[in-house]
Amino acid sequence: MANSLGRHVLAEIYGCRFDILNDREQVEALMVNAALEAGAEVREVVFHKFSPQGVSGVVVISESHLAIHTWPELGYAAVDVFTCGDSVNPWDACNYLTDHFEAGHMTATEMKRGIVDESKEAVNL
Amino acid sequence: MANSLGRHVLAEIYGCRFDILNDREQVEALMVNAALEAGAEVREVVFHKFSPQGVSGVVVISESHLAIHTWPELGYAAVDVFTCGDSVNPWDACNYLTDHFEAGHMTATEMKRGIVDESKEAVNL
Repeated sequence: MANSLGRHVLAEIYGCRFDILNDREQVEALMVNAALEAGAEVREVVFHKFSPQGVSGVVVISESHLAIHTWPELGYAAVDVFTCGDSVNPWDACNYLTDHFEAGHMTATEMKRGIVDESKEAVNL
Repeated sequence: MANSLGRHVLAEIYGCRFDILNDREQVEALMVNAALEAGAEVREVVFHKFSPQGVSGVVVISESHLAIHTWPELGYAAVDVFTCGDSVNPWDACNYLTDHFEAGHMTATEMKRGIVDESKEAVNL
């Protein structure tokens, strides 16, 4: 029987506030809070501000990661949340960010990652 | 006319060598090289080794990011490569990693990220 190791939600968040998406400190704080909101344990945090605008960053969690890239001039943030295990819900993080970016619209897709057959024979594909 | 801001390749890499996937330094070096191989400019690098096994890490590039999570005991690595612009090819990074993990098998999907209408009216969705 096949099962997936992880869940990877790719979220397109539109209509966000320019000033939030262009502020490295705010984006970083919201991403860390989104991880905590989802029930994750934060391990490493790295964010980068681009000139003239935009922020990229990642929160590495025990359960995988959250990543973001913002285009403040378009009001757009590309977010992805990868989680494994049953204790963390990636959708909680996406919804938290959508709320706190004061977004107009969010669309997202969940991809199953690491389809591993549970039978011993299929472990080494 | 609609266009996408980025390309996001999600790669499932199976049948990899245990010792490579469990070595933080090797995984980090290969991920940085994969970014360079794809033509990216590296901005930030963060990797984490889990106990008893597994490595998670991210390379933030000017053109977005590369992320990895490894399950050495399953010979499996979940890789995602997000790029924007025309100068970087995310598939080059995935193929480089598949080769250097000495993988048996790789499957991948490319997702378009940030579908933004080029007309002014559609910028603020």
